Amino acid sequence: MSEIIGNLKKDLAFVAYIDRLKNVIRVNALFDGSREENTAEHSWHAATSALILAPYANEDVDIDRVIRMLLIHDLIEIEAGDIFAYADPEVLAQQEQLEIEAAEVVFTQISSPQGENLRALWDEFEARITPDAKFAKAIDRLLPIFSNIYNGGEIWKQRKVSLAQVQENVAIIREGSSRLADLVNELVLMAAQEGLLRT
Amino acid sequence: MSEIIGNLKKDLAFVAYIDRLKNVIRVNALFDGSREENTAEHSWHAATSALILAPYANEDVDIDRVIRMLLIHDLIEIEAGDIFAYADPEVLAQQEQLEIEAAEVVFTQISSPQGENLRALWDEFEARITPDAKFAKAIDRLLPIFSNIYNGGEIWKQRKVSLAQVQENVAIIREGSSRLADLVNELVLMAAQEGLLRT
Repeated sequence: MSEIIGNLKKDLAFVAYIDRLKNVIRVNALFDGSREENTAEHSWHAATSALILAPYANEDVDIDRVIRMLLIHDLIEIEAGDIFAYADPEVLAQQEQLEIEAAEVVFTQISSPQGENLRALWDEFEARITPDAKFAKAIDRLLPIFSNIYNGGEIWKQRKVSLAQVQENVAIIREGSSRLADLVNELVLMAAQEGLLRT
Repeated sequence: MSEIIGNLKKDLAFVAYIDRLKNVIRVNALFDGSREENTAEHSWHAATSALILAPYANEDVDIDRVIRMLLIHDLIEIEAGDIFAYADPEVLAQQEQLEIEAAEVVFTQISSPQGENLRALWDEFEARITPDAKFAKAIDRLLPIFSNIYNGGEIWKQRKVSLAQVQENVAIIREGSSRLADLVNELVLMAAQEGLLRT
Protein backbone atom coordinates (compact mmCIF):
# COMPACT_ATOMS: atom_id res chain seq x y z
CA MET A 1 0.00 0.00 0.00
CA SER A 2 2.77 2.47 0.89
CA GLU A 3 4.46 1.58 -2.41
CA ILE A 4 1.27 2.38 -4.29
CA ILE A 5 1.05 5.79 -2.63
CA GLY A 6 4.74 6.40 -3.32
CA ASN A 7 4.19 5.60 -7.00
CA LEU A 8 1.08 7.76 -7.12
CA LYS A 9 2.92 10.77 -5.75
CA LYS A 10 5.79 10.17 -8.18
CA ASP A 11 3.44 9.91 -11.13
CA LEU A 12 1.46 12.99 -10.10
CA ALA A 13 4.72 14.91 -9.81
CA PHE A 14 5.44 13.82 -13.39
CA VAL A 15 2.04 15.16 -14.51
CA ALA A 16 3.09 18.54 -13.08
CA TYR A 17 6.59 18.27 -14.62
CA ILE A 18 5.39 17.68 -18.18
CA ASP A 19 3.34 20.89 -18.04
CA ARG A 20 6.67 22.55 -18.92
CA LEU A 21 6.33 21.30 -22.49
CA LYS A 22 3.78 24.11 -22.96
CA ASN A 23 6.67 26.56 -22.62
CA VAL A 24 8.91 24.95 -25.26
CA ILE A 25 8.52 27.07 -28.39
CA ARG A 26 8.97 25.46 -31.81
CA VAL A 27 10.38 27.07 -34.93
CA ASN A 28 6.95 26.74 -36.53
CA ALA A 29 3.90 28.98 -36.64
CA LEU A 30 0.20 28.18 -36.23
CA PHE A 31 -1.85 27.55 -39.37
CA ASP A 32 -3.18 31.12 -39.11
CA GLY A 33 0.37 32.46 -38.74
CA SER A 34 -0.57 34.42 -35.60
CA ARG A 35 2.23 33.08 -33.38
CA GLU A 36 4.75 30.27 -33.00
CA GLU A 37 3.41 27.05 -31.58
CA ASN A 38 4.62 25.23 -28.49
CA THR A 39 5.53 21.58 -28.32
CA ALA A 40 2.60 20.51 -26.10
CA GLU A 41 -0.04 21.77 -28.52
CA HIS A 42 1.96 20.36 -31.45
CA SER A 43 1.95 16.95 -29.71
CA TRP A 44 -1.84 17.15 -29.36
CA HIS A 45 -2.21 18.12 -33.00
CA ALA A 46 0.03 15.24 -34.09
CA ALA A 47 -1.76 12.59 -31.99
CA THR A 48 -5.21 13.77 -33.08
CA SER A 49 -4.16 14.02 -36.73
CA ALA A 50 -2.85 10.44 -36.59
CA LEU A 51 -6.30 9.33 -35.43
CA ILE A 52 -8.00 11.26 -38.28
CA LEU A 53 -5.53 10.16 -40.96
CA ALA A 54 -5.15 6.52 -39.86
CA PRO A 55 -6.99 5.20 -42.95
CA TYR A 56 -4.15 6.50 -45.16
CA ALA A 57 -1.26 4.56 -43.56
CA ASN A 58 0.72 2.36 -45.96
CA GLU A 59 0.68 -0.68 -43.71
CA ASP A 60 -1.59 -2.03 -40.99
CA VAL A 61 -0.76 0.10 -38.00
CA ASP A 62 -1.90 -0.07 -34.39
CA ILE A 63 -3.15 3.50 -34.33
CA ASP A 64 -3.36 3.58 -30.54
CA ARG A 65 0.37 2.81 -30.32
CA VAL A 66 0.98 5.55 -32.90
CA ILE A 67 -1.04 7.97 -30.76
CA ARG A 68 0.90 7.04 -27.63
CA MET A 69 4.17 7.60 -29.49
CA LEU A 70 3.08 11.03 -30.66
CA LEU A 71 1.89 12.04 -27.19
CA ILE A 72 5.33 11.35 -25.72
CA HIS A 73 7.63 11.82 -28.74
CA ASP A 74 8.76 15.31 -27.75
CA LEU A 75 8.81 15.05 -23.94
CA ILE A 76 12.60 15.07 -24.17
CA GLU A 77 12.34 18.68 -25.37
CA ILE A 78 11.55 19.72 -21.79
CA GLU A 79 15.24 19.09 -21.17
CA ALA A 80 16.78 19.37 -24.65
CA GLY A 81 14.68 22.16 -26.20
CA ASP A 82 13.44 22.27 -29.79
CA ILE A 83 15.66 22.57 -32.83
CA PHE A 84 14.69 23.68 -36.33
CA ALA A 85 13.93 20.73 -38.61
CA TYR A 86 16.23 22.20 -41.27
CA ALA A 87 19.17 23.09 -39.03
CA ASP A 88 22.75 22.25 -40.08
CA PRO A 89 23.67 18.54 -39.92
CA GLU A 90 26.20 19.14 -37.10
CA VAL A 91 23.56 20.94 -35.05
CA LEU A 92 21.07 18.13 -35.64
CA ALA A 93 23.62 15.48 -34.62
CA GLN A 94 24.43 17.39 -31.44
CA GLN A 95 20.73 17.70 -30.69
CA GLU A 96 20.29 13.93 -31.12
CA GLN A 97 22.90 13.36 -28.42
CA LEU A 98 21.21 15.89 -26.12
CA GLU A 99 17.88 14.14 -26.63
CA ILE A 100 19.27 10.75 -25.65
CA GLU A 101 20.63 12.27 -22.44
CA ALA A 102 17.29 13.99 -21.89
CA ALA A 103 15.45 10.67 -22.24
CA GLU A 104 17.37 9.37 -19.22
CA VAL A 105 16.17 12.34 -17.18
CA VAL A 106 12.57 12.30 -18.39
CA PHE A 107 11.45 8.68 -18.50
CA THR A 108 13.10 7.66 -15.23
CA GLN A 109 10.73 9.98 -13.38
CA ILE A 110 7.74 7.70 -14.03
CA SER A 111 7.08 4.67 -11.84
CA SER A 112 7.96 1.20 -13.13
CA PRO A 113 7.10 -0.43 -15.52
CA GLN A 114 5.38 2.56 -17.18
CA GLY A 115 8.61 4.54 -17.43
CA GLU A 116 10.45 1.72 -19.20
CA ASN A 117 7.48 1.13 -21.53
CA LEU A 118 7.35 4.76 -22.59
CA ARG A 119 11.12 4.89 -23.07
CA ALA A 120 10.92 1.82 -25.32
CA LEU A 121 8.14 3.50 -27.30
CA TRP A 122 10.25 6.63 -27.76
CA ASP A 123 13.23 4.56 -28.91
CA GLU A 124 10.96 2.80 -31.41
CA PHE A 125 9.69 6.14 -32.70
CA GLU A 126 13.21 7.47 -33.17
CA ALA A 127 14.41 4.29 -34.94
CA ARG A 128 11.62 4.60 -37.57
CA ILE A 129 11.71 0.91 -38.49
CA THR A 130 8.31 -0.45 -37.45
CA PRO A 131 5.13 0.45 -39.38
CA ASP A 132 3.79 2.26 -36.27
CA ALA A 133 6.92 4.41 -35.99
CA LYS A 134 6.98 5.16 -39.71
CA PHE A 135 3.40 6.40 -39.63
CA ALA A 136 3.99 8.42 -36.46
CA LYS A 137 7.02 10.11 -38.06
CA ALA A 138 5.01 10.75 -41.22
CA ILE A 139 2.42 12.71 -39.24
CA ASP A 140 5.11 14.54 -37.28
CA ARG A 141 6.78 15.67 -40.52
CA LEU A 142 3.53 16.41 -42.33
CA LEU A 143 2.20 19.03 -39.91
CA PRO A 144 4.91 21.71 -40.13
CA ILE A 145 5.00 21.41 -43.93
CA PHE A 146 1.23 21.75 -44.06
CA SER A 147 1.17 24.73 -41.66
CA ASN A 148 3.86 26.58 -43.64
CA ILE A 149 1.91 26.11 -46.84
CA TYR A 150 -1.23 27.38 -45.08
CA ASN A 151 0.28 30.44 -43.42
CA GLY A 152 2.37 31.68 -46.33
CA GLY A 153 5.65 30.10 -45.20
CA GLU A 154 7.13 33.06 -43.31
CA ILE A 155 9.35 30.68 -41.33
CA TRP A 156 10.55 28.97 -44.51
CA LYS A 157 11.31 32.34 -46.10
CA GLN A 158 13.11 33.76 -43.06
CA ARG A 159 15.28 30.66 -42.80
CA LYS A 160 15.77 30.29 -46.58
CA VAL A 161 14.52 26.71 -46.65
CA SER A 162 14.85 25.00 -50.04
CA LEU A 163 12.46 22.79 -51.98
CA ALA A 164 15.04 19.97 -51.80
CA GLN A 165 15.15 20.17 -47.99
CA VAL A 166 11.37 19.91 -47.70
CA GLN A 167 11.31 17.05 -50.20
CA GLU A 168 13.64 15.08 -47.90
CA ASN A 169 10.88 15.29 -45.32
CA VAL A 170 8.26 14.34 -47.90
CA ALA A 171 10.33 11.16 -48.40
CA ILE A 172 9.94 10.42 -44.69
CA ILE A 173 6.17 10.98 -44.98
CA ARG A 174 6.20 8.51 -47.89
CA GLU A 175 7.64 5.76 -45.66
CA GLY A 176 4.46 5.97 -43.57
CA SER A 177 1.87 7.01 -46.15
CA SER A 178 2.40 7.27 -49.89
CA ARG A 179 -1.06 8.76 -50.32
CA LEU A 180 -0.32 11.59 -47.92
CA ALA A 181 3.12 12.06 -49.49
CA ASP A 182 1.64 12.35 -53.01
CA LEU A 183 -0.77 15.06 -51.96
CA VAL A 184 1.78 16.95 -49.84
CA ASN A 185 4.32 16.81 -52.66
CA GLU A 186 1.84 18.47 -55.00
CA LEU A 187 1.25 21.22 -52.45
CA VAL A 188 4.99 21.66 -51.87
CA LEU A 189 5.68 22.06 -55.60
CA MET A 190 2.96 24.72 -55.78
CA ALA A 191 4.42 26.47 -52.73
CA ALA A 192 7.86 26.51 -54.38
CA GLN A 193 6.35 28.05 -57.54
CA GLU A 194 4.78 30.73 -55.40
CA GLY A 195 8.16 31.59 -53.90
CA LEU A 196 7.72 30.09 -50.41
CA LEU A 197 10.78 27.86 -50.92
CA ARG A 198 14.19 28.36 -52.46
CA THR A 199 14.53 26.41 -55.72
CA MET B 1 -10.18 5.95 -56.09
CA SER B 2 -11.67 9.43 -56.55
CA GLU B 3 -13.69 8.86 -53.37
CA ILE B 4 -10.48 8.07 -51.48
CA ILE B 5 -8.88 11.31 -52.72
CA GLY B 6 -12.05 13.22 -51.83
CA ASN B 7 -11.96 11.81 -48.31
CA LEU B 8 -8.24 12.51 -47.98
CA LYS B 9 -8.72 16.17 -48.91
CA LYS B 10 -11.66 16.44 -46.51
CA ASP B 11 -9.67 14.87 -43.67
CA LEU B 12 -6.61 17.03 -44.34
CA ALA B 13 -8.83 20.10 -44.29
CA PHE B 14 -10.02 18.92 -40.87
CA VAL B 15 -6.41 18.66 -39.67
CA ALA B 16 -6.00 22.33 -40.61
CA TYR B 17 -9.36 23.26 -39.03
CA ILE B 18 -8.58 21.77 -35.60
CA ASP B 19 -5.43 23.91 -35.37
CA ARG B 20 -7.86 26.62 -34.19
CA LEU B 21 -8.13 24.87 -30.83
CA LYS B 22 -4.70 26.36 -30.06
CA ASN B 23 -6.38 29.78 -30.00
CA VAL B 24 -9.14 28.85 -27.54
CA ILE B 25 -8.04 30.20 -24.16
CA ARG B 26 -9.18 28.47 -20.97
CA VAL B 27 -9.93 30.08 -17.62
CA ASN B 28 -6.95 28.21 -16.18
CA ALA B 29 -3.25 29.01 -15.85
CA LEU B 30 -0.16 26.88 -16.47
CA PHE B 31 1.38 25.09 -13.48
CA ASP B 32 4.03 27.84 -13.31
CA GLY B 33 1.30 30.51 -13.40
CA SER B 34 3.02 32.33 -16.28
CA ARG B 35 -0.02 32.52 -18.58
CA GLU B 36 -3.43 31.02 -19.27
CA GLU B 37 -3.42 27.75 -21.13
CA ASN B 38 -5.17 26.97 -24.40
CA THR B 39 -7.45 24.04 -25.03
CA ALA B 40 -5.12 22.21 -27.44
CA GLU B 41 -2.27 22.00 -24.97
CA HIS B 42 -4.74 21.11 -22.19
CA SER B 43 -6.02 18.24 -24.36
CA TRP B 44 -2.45 16.96 -24.78
CA HIS B 45 -1.84 17.21 -21.07
CA ALA B 46 -5.05 15.33 -20.30
CA ALA B 47 -4.42 12.51 -22.78
CA THR B 48 -0.80 12.07 -21.65
CA SER B 49 -1.76 12.22 -17.97
CA ALA B 50 -4.37 9.50 -18.55
CA LEU B 51 -1.61 7.28 -19.93
CA ILE B 52 0.62 7.99 -16.92
CA LEU B 53 -2.16 7.62 -14.33
CA ALA B 54 -3.90 4.59 -15.88
CA PRO B 55 -2.81 2.27 -13.03
CA TYR B 56 -4.98 4.28 -10.60
CA ALA B 57 -8.35 3.87 -12.35
CA ASN B 58 -11.11 2.32 -10.22
CA GLU B 59 -12.20 -0.16 -12.86
CA ASP B 60 -10.59 -1.92 -15.79
CA VAL B 61 -10.44 0.74 -18.46
CA ASP B 62 -9.36 0.62 -22.09
CA ILE B 63 -6.79 3.38 -21.70
CA ASP B 64 -6.47 3.88 -25.46
CA ARG B 65 -10.18 4.67 -25.68
CA VAL B 66 -9.74 7.07 -22.74
CA ILE B 67 -6.87 8.75 -24.60
CA ARG B 68 -8.93 9.09 -27.78
CA MET B 69 -11.76 10.63 -25.76
CA LEU B 70 -9.43 13.16 -24.19
CA LEU B 71 -7.85 14.07 -27.52
CA ILE B 72 -11.24 15.01 -28.97
CA HIS B 73 -13.24 15.95 -25.86
CA ASP B 74 -12.88 19.70 -26.34
CA LEU B 75 -12.92 19.97 -30.15
CA ILE B 76 -16.41 21.46 -29.82
CA GLU B 77 -14.77 24.49 -28.17
CA ILE B 78 -13.53 25.58 -31.60
CA GLU B 79 -17.17 26.56 -32.20
CA ALA B 80 -18.55 26.96 -28.68
CA GLY B 81 -15.57 28.46 -26.82
CA ASP B 82 -14.49 27.59 -23.28
CA ILE B 83 -16.48 28.34 -20.16
CA PHE B 84 -15.25 28.51 -16.57
CA ALA B 85 -15.78 25.21 -14.72
CA TYR B 86 -17.39 27.10 -11.83
CA ALA B 87 -19.68 29.37 -13.86
CA ASP B 88 -23.34 29.86 -12.83
CA PRO B 89 -25.63 26.88 -13.47
CA GLU B 90 -27.64 28.81 -16.12
CA VAL B 91 -24.45 29.69 -17.98
CA LEU B 92 -23.29 26.07 -17.83
CA ALA B 93 -26.65 24.80 -19.12
CA GLN B 94 -26.56 27.29 -21.99
CA GLN B 95 -23.00 26.18 -22.79
CA GLU B 96 -24.10 22.54 -22.89
CA GLN B 97 -26.66 23.43 -25.56
CA LEU B 98 -24.03 25.36 -27.55
CA GLU B 99 -21.67 22.38 -27.37
CA ILE B 100 -24.28 19.97 -28.74
CA GLU B 101 -24.83 22.32 -31.68
CA ALA B 102 -21.07 22.63 -32.10
CA ALA B 103 -20.69 18.84 -32.23
CA GLU B 104 -22.89 18.84 -35.35
CA VAL B 105 -20.56 21.32 -37.01
CA VAL B 106 -17.30 19.70 -35.91
CA PHE B 107 -17.72 15.95 -36.31
CA THR B 108 -19.54 16.11 -39.65
CA GLN B 109 -16.39 17.52 -41.25
CA ILE B 110 -14.56 14.17 -40.98
CA SER B 111 -15.11 11.44 -43.57
CA SER B 112 -17.29 8.46 -42.72
CA PRO B 113 -17.22 6.34 -40.58
CA GLN B 114 -14.52 8.15 -38.58
CA GLY B 115 -16.71 11.19 -38.00
CA GLU B 116 -19.56 9.13 -36.57
CA ASN B 117 -17.15 7.12 -34.41
CA LEU B 118 -15.61 10.23 -32.88
CA ARG B 119 -19.03 11.78 -32.30
CA ALA B 120 -20.12 8.61 -30.46
CA LEU B 121 -16.96 8.77 -28.36
CA TRP B 122 -17.67 12.40 -27.44
CA ASP B 123 -21.26 11.54 -26.49
CA GLU B 124 -19.94 8.71 -24.29
CA PHE B 125 -17.49 11.07 -22.60
CA GLU B 126 -20.20 13.62 -21.89
CA ALA B 127 -22.61 10.98 -20.52
CA ARG B 128 -20.01 9.79 -17.95
CA ILE B 129 -21.58 6.36 -17.52
CA THR B 130 -18.96 3.91 -18.82
CA PRO B 131 -15.73 3.22 -16.88
CA ASP B 132 -13.71 4.75 -19.75
CA ALA B 133 -15.72 7.98 -19.67
CA LYS B 134 -15.58 8.18 -15.88
CA PHE B 135 -11.81 7.91 -15.88
CA ALA B 136 -11.46 10.40 -18.75
CA LYS B 137 -13.62 12.92 -16.85
CA ALA B 138 -11.60 12.29 -13.69
CA ILE B 139 -8.39 13.31 -15.48
CA ASP B 140 -10.09 16.30 -17.10
CA ARG B 141 -11.26 17.55 -13.68
CA LEU B 142 -8.03 16.69 -11.89
CA LEU B 143 -5.72 18.87 -13.99
CA PRO B 144 -7.16 22.35 -13.33
CA ILE B 145 -7.45 21.62 -9.60
CA PHE B 146 -3.87 20.42 -9.53
CA SER B 147 -2.55 23.43 -11.51
CA ASN B 148 -4.37 25.90 -9.22
CA ILE B 149 -2.84 24.28 -6.17
CA TYR B 150 0.58 24.43 -7.83
CA ASN B 151 0.47 28.02 -9.02
CA GLY B 152 -1.05 29.59 -5.94
CA GLY B 153 -4.66 29.60 -7.18
CA GLU B 154 -4.79 33.14 -8.62
CA ILE B 155 -7.72 32.11 -10.84
CA TRP B 156 -9.59 30.61 -7.87
CA LYS B 157 -9.00 33.76 -5.82
CA GLN B 158 -10.01 36.16 -8.61
CA ARG B 159 -13.20 34.23 -9.22
CA LYS B 160 -13.92 33.59 -5.52
CA VAL B 161 -14.20 29.82 -5.95
CA SER B 162 -15.28 27.96 -2.81
CA LEU B 163 -14.00 24.75 -1.25
CA ALA B 164 -17.48 23.23 -1.71
CA GLN B 165 -17.39 23.96 -5.46
CA VAL B 166 -14.02 22.28 -5.89
CA GLN B 167 -15.16 19.32 -3.81
CA GLU B 168 -18.02 18.77 -6.27
CA ASN B 169 -15.32 18.20 -8.86
CA VAL B 170 -13.37 15.95 -6.51
CA ALA B 171 -16.53 13.81 -6.38
CA ILE B 172 -16.36 13.48 -10.17
CA ILE B 173 -12.70 12.46 -9.90
CA ARG B 174 -13.78 9.84 -7.35
CA GLU B 175 -16.12 8.21 -9.88
CA GLY B 176 -13.06 7.41 -12.00
CA SER B 177 -10.34 6.98 -9.38
CA SER B 178 -10.81 6.93 -5.63
CA ARG B 179 -7.04 6.89 -5.10
CA LEU B 180 -6.56 10.07 -7.10
CA ALA B 181 -9.58 11.63 -5.37
CA ASP B 182 -8.21 10.85 -1.89
CA LEU B 183 -4.90 12.50 -2.64
CA VAL B 184 -6.44 15.50 -4.42
CA ASN B 185 -8.89 16.01 -1.58
CA GLU B 186 -6.03 16.24 0.90
CA LEU B 187 -4.33 18.84 -1.28
CA VAL B 188 -7.57 20.79 -1.70
CA LEU B 189 -8.16 20.94 2.06
CA MET B 190 -4.62 22.24 2.53
CA ALA B 191 -5.18 24.82 -0.22
CA ALA B 192 -8.36 26.01 1.52
CA GLN B 193 -6.47 26.38 4.79
CA GLU B 194 -3.90 28.48 2.98
CA GLY B 195 -6.63 30.79 1.72
CA LEU B 196 -6.72 29.72 -1.94
CA LEU B 197 -10.41 28.84 -1.65
CA ARG B 198 -13.42 30.43 0.02
CA THR B 199 -14.59 28.37 3.00
